[in-house]
Amino acid sequence: MPIVVTNIPRVPRTLASEFASLGVATVHEAQGRKGLMASNMRPIYRPACIAGSAVTCEVAPGDNWMIHVAVEQCQRGDVLVVTPTSLCQDGYFGDLLATSLKARGVQGLIIDAGVRDIATLTEMQFPVWSSAVCAQGTVKETIANVNTSINCAGARINPGDLIVADDDGVVVVRHAEVDDVLRKAQARVANEDEKRVRFENGELGLDIYDMRERLAAKGLRYVESDD
Amino acid sequence: MPIVVTNIPRVPRTLASEFASLGVATVHEAQGRKGLMASNMRPIYRPACIAGSAVTCEVAPGDNWMIHVAVEQCQRGDVLVVTPTSLCQDGYFGDLLATSLKARGVQGLIIDAGVRDIATLTEMQFPVWSSAVCAQGTVKETIANVNTSINCAGARINPGDLIVADDDGVVVVRHAEVDDVLRKAQARVANEDEKRVRFENGELGLDIYDMRERLAAKGLRYVESDD
Amino acid sequence: MPIVVTNIPRVPRTLASEFASLGVATVHEAQGRKGLMASNMRPIYRPACIAGSAVTCEVAPGDNWMIHVAVEQCQRGDVLVVTPTSLCQDGYFGDLLATSLKARGVQGLIIDAGVRDIATLTEMQFPVWSSAVCAQGTVKETIANVNTSINCAGARINPGDLIVADDDGVVVVRHAEVDDVLRKAQARVANEDEKRVRFENGELGLDIYDMRERLAAKGLRYVESDD
Amino acid sequence: MPIVVTNIPRVPRTLASEFASLGVATVHEAQGRKGLMASNMRPIYRPACIAGSAVTCEVAPGDNWMIHVAVEQCQRGDVLVVTPTSLCQDGYFGDLLATSLKARGVQGLIIDAGVRDIATLTEMQFPVWSSAVCAQGTVKETIANVNTSINCAGARINPGDLIVADDDGVVVVRHAEVDDVLRKAQARVANEDEKRVRFENGELGLDIYDMRERLAAKGLRYVESDD
Amino acid sequence: MPIVVTNIPRVPRTLASEFASLGVATVHEAQGRKGLMASNMRPIYRPACIAGSAVTCEVAPGDNWMIHVAVEQCQRGDVLVVTPTSLCQDGYFGDLLATSLKARGVQGLIIDAGVRDIATLTEMQFPVWSSAVCAQGTVKETIANVNTSINCAGARINPGDLIVADDDGVVVVRHAEVDDVLRKAQARVANEDEKRVRFENGELGLDIYDMRERLAAKGLRYVESDD
Amino acid sequence: MPIVVTNIPRVPRTLASEFASLGVATVHEAQGRKGLMASNMRPIYRPACIAGSAVTCEVAPGDNWMIHVAVEQCQRGDVLVVTPTSLCQDGYFGDLLATSLKARGVQGLIIDAGVRDIATLTEMQFPVWSSAVCAQGTVKETIANVNTSINCAGARINPGDLIVADDDGVVVVRHAEVDDVLRKAQARVANEDEKRVRFENGELGLDIYDMRERLAAKGLRYVESDD
Repeated sequence: MPIVVTNIPRVPRTLASEFASLGVATVHEAQGRKGLMASNMRPIYRPACIAGSAVTCEVAPGDNWMIHVAVEQCQRGDVLVVTPTSLCQDGYFGDLLATSLKARGVQGLIIDAGVRDIATLTEMQFPVWSSAVCAQGTVKETIANVNTSINCAGARINPGDLIVADDDGVVVVRHAEVDDVLRKAQARVANEDEKRVRFENGELGLDIYDMRERLAAKGLRYVESDD
Repeated sequence: MPIVVTNIPRVPRTLASEFASLGVATVHEAQGRKGLMASNMRPIYRPACIAGSAVTCEVAPGDNWMIHVAVEQCQRGDVLVVTPTSLCQDGYFGDLLATSLKARGVQGLIIDAGVRDIATLTEMQFPVWSSAVCAQGTVKETIANVNTSINCAGARINPGDLIVADDDGVVVVRHAEVDDVLRKAQARVANEDEKRVRFENGELGLDIYDMRERLAAKGLRYVESDD
Repeated sequence: MPIVVTNIPRVPRTLASEFASLGVATVHEAQGRKGLMASNMRPIYRPACIAGSAVTCEVAPGDNWMIHVAVEQCQRGDVLVVTPTSLCQDGYFGDLLATSLKARGVQGLIIDAGVRDIATLTEMQFPVWSSAVCAQGTVKETIANVNTSINCAGARINPGDLIVADDDGVVVVRHAEVDDVLRKAQARVANEDEKRVRFENGELGLDIYDMRERLAAKGLRYVESDD
Repeated sequence: MPIVVTNIPRVPRTLASEFASLGVATVHEAQGRKGLMASNMRPIYRPACIAGSAVTCEVAPGDNWMIHVAVEQCQRGDVLVVTPTSLCQDGYFGDLLATSLKARGVQGLIIDAGVRDIATLTEMQFPVWSSAVCAQGTVKETIANVNTSINCAGARINPGDLIVADDDGVVVVRHAEVDDVLRKAQARVANEDEKRVRFENGELGLDIYDMRERLAAKGLRYVESDD
Repeated sequence: MPIVVTNIPRVPRTLASEFASLGVATVHEAQGRKGLMASNMRPIYRPACIAGSAVTCEVAPGDNWMIHVAVEQCQRGDVLVVTPTSLCQDGYFGDLLATSLKARGVQGLIIDAGVRDIATLTEMQFPVWSSAVCAQGTVKETIANVNTSINCAGARINPGDLIVADDDGVVVVRHAEVDDVLRKAQARVANEDEKRVRFENGELGLDIYDMRERLAAKGLRYVESDD
Repeated sequence: MPIVVTNIPRVPRTLASEFASLGVATVHEAQGRKGLMASNMRPIYRPACIAGSAVTCEVAPGDNWMIHVAVEQCQRGDVLVVTPTSLCQDGYFGDLLATSLKARGVQGLIIDAGVRDIATLTEMQFPVWSSAVCAQGTVKETIANVNTSINCAGARINPGDLIVADDDGVVVVRHAEVDDVLRKAQARVANEDEKRVRFENGELGLDIYDMRERLAAKGLRYVESDD
């Protein structure tokens, strides 16, 4: 029988907020290129950028009942992550649920399904990453799990893992690895900032990364165009 | 042989305009969740929101000739609905046709195919919902029906039915059901406005909709996290 | 073994810049409806509009090494065109490479694969047309060709061909045909400007293009609605 | 509220059976190229070919309850046509339901959703045309309509219309037009049989259909290869 | 750094083989509808049916090096499960690797990517479930993990979990749950065998499952057709 | 204006026929992994395997007129390659055209569009590789080129190039490179035959290809499972 797990662990909010400015691509690299959701998970408006602890929620196809159950489990700073138990594009989520989540201080929604009322959600500046936009509503008949481990858009999410989402997509960081990934991501950013100055000054990646010799060793040849 | 049906019935413009503010999701719910087009029908710019009587138009694949015929059948406040007789993504419609429709007071275009010149259409603020954006043009060789019943993006459209389109998608309301659906949709909006205040005040859907008992009866259990 | 072709021919920049204002749809028509990339090649922000000489670049799946090689071959006004040797949606290109290309005066990127850091690219106003947005990074292990003829998103591109890209998509014009296509495209625009005035004044395409007789000859009939 | 319509009209079985040998492509042409379902509706095994009266059935996403209701409305020679009220790929139908339909003499199933147990269905030689194969099961919570007009895979189906399905796809013929379409389809077959003999003898379509003059008038030119 | 985990646990072969005859749909139901891979994972020939312990293998996009590493970890009765670290359709696997796996007694391959030489694989009767068929080959440059937990086609797979695959798709059973799921699945089959006899005898699901009262309570009404 | 190029070069039939037994994957590897069509080009029945000189044919969307023109240009042993000028899934080709091609000794059809009458084509054993199966017919209104260079399913085809197609897909070999590719492909086959014996005898790819040292150098580590 389905369960709702209460009092899940969370990533401290000050820690989580440091991830939002790092961005999905950097965090994904920093943790060894794992935890990325499929690229069809797109934000309903841009730019948008959040980071917070995952509250996870399964829903039956065409049935959003458990989202109401999950809302109660959400705290300030959380990110709600919803996955249907089978492929579905229905509009599970609209402006009333967004109002409820916003009242609780939830930062945004990640859903591998459809969302609706996106004009209002955009006005409210409540960000959603979804695999569809669809006005088709849902019923409230079937129960499912809240705050268990789920697969969402190809990624494994445990409740309390850190979710980072921006215009590039959505990535999950394991709760236990947050400190380590943050340190590595910040190091990447520092390194990239330094590189950016060199690129702005017209230096080439070929030289910055010392690639010429290795390219030649692989056999790359330069030839004049005969056109 | 193809026909053009003239003097189709229309939904009064003052009545139609009340639907634009209600939105697609609400109208779709109010009429019992029918009449929604497929979710790949997306607006070329956002926000966009229209409601008006359908002028229907079939086109051959790669052939936009009948759109010119359909333009003449359009009146102020209408919405032109175009469907190809087989799957096609070509750019059937661009800024010249939009200029012509705008000059006649047409509110927008719904097309289960491609559209082009979307930068200009956006500047003109002539809204289009389409299944593709594509610069590929079309020919003018084959005739087809105007103002007959058509299937467009999975929905059945009769000429004179009401089309409502916004950022969530496109829905059709049968001409004979417009009054009834309007009344029901307005009741939904009133009900939602009241609910929205309660959600803003932090009340939960679990309580507003009295769900707790029914969830328990279904067997939902709450357990403490052991993490 | 892979090669890098240097000193490719280019379309003069003043000539290229005239194409940007003409737009993809017009250029595609003017050259007889050829050279269009597939319609899933979409700009990361809108509006965006560029025209320049193609520097072509092949990349292995999940490997962006050759983009660094291609950057060095780019000159002011060029457009970089990247195609993977097999289907791949990884994020081959981000803000550092964009900084490098921008420092060289490159106008934009066309890539039949993924791109990342799109929030930053949008801020930088460095336009990209891509078939995906994806935070997944790439490696630097495999070499491939730069400035050879490639297939990109269904179109054949030779180095030095003219690329025109706008909100409608991407089209290529053969280097040798640029003058001819420009003349034809400008003639189209003049003709369309004249037509636009007539459409604005409420004239119908049926009359402007003299279609009524031909439609009747095809058998089109007008019937009154019996609704 | 949902309804089940009983005692729907039917196409006489001897009449229906004549359509099976004509095939979908011929029937579709004979009725003026209308009524074809989308091409993602594929048979689970080949060859397969049926024709019979439609019993129509709506189902909620992930919910096959109404198929059990529809089975009771099926008679010998019928074809069951099932469409979900929103996009769903779940496996609504398996070997037990097939056993039940077969026991009633039903010819096959058309479903714009998933089917499972296809190895057994193939052994049983119970043909199914579906848009997916999926082992994911369904629940029995939500009621919907049986034997009302439905949209299925882009086609409009009224109960009692004739369904023809073969390796090429699925087409619907309006109940009132069955006689007319049969006559036209048989004429097509006779004409094609005659043409087939001529093609077998090496005659060209260019001559059989007298195309050469019209091609030349369109401007087609023949040139020698210079390779 | 990537690792290869050796001496993973395995499901006893006699136990595993009992699952093959139960089939994917039954096993999926018996374990509470979890563990199913996405429905685009299709067998290269039909019928095909296997069950065995998972050896898991990550591969870089366009790079099949680690499959060679994984082969060595495979024992008689195993099923090799391969997932690329980003979306890729290349043909990672052909007849030579199949020959190697067959020599080791491996039952089949599950790969969320492409496969090639399928004519030969079919002749050899070496079954493969894949998301693509593609002749495009791969390189051997990048290492990755073997026998770690992976996500494959939307399902989580731990090394040593049981894989069951047939014409309906692919499902994973957790190693620790194999006994329990087997018992439940066998009970389902016994129950279905009994039901099948009743269906064959013409009884209706409405009666076998006692649905009529509940349908009426939901409000379902029967009305005569007026056609 | 469209042209038909006559007397195109051809690959000698005895030479072409040697490619059929080599297969697409081997030929593709042998020529440096180029010339492969997209993997959605699938045979209508399996197994199927052909190799012959390309006669190329453009068609307008929904218009198969030029196929009749192309038939006349086909000789014994040729392969007809058809591409629409914009994306289209209509059924351009059926049993009458197959009868005509078969009468001329044509080996098969490659078409990046739809095909119909596939039950009959399968009986006739006339192989077709297509991107769709669709009963939707076409018209005969628009002319286009025959035997010019075309892009088909992502590959560039010149008339007289060699087409090789089997269960894995379709590849093109440039006319001028046929001898060279044949020699390389035959060498690959000889090498693979030798390897196959070693794999059959239980040798591992790790040893046959001497991979262990290089894997260790990349940092791959082996660890015992702790399960």
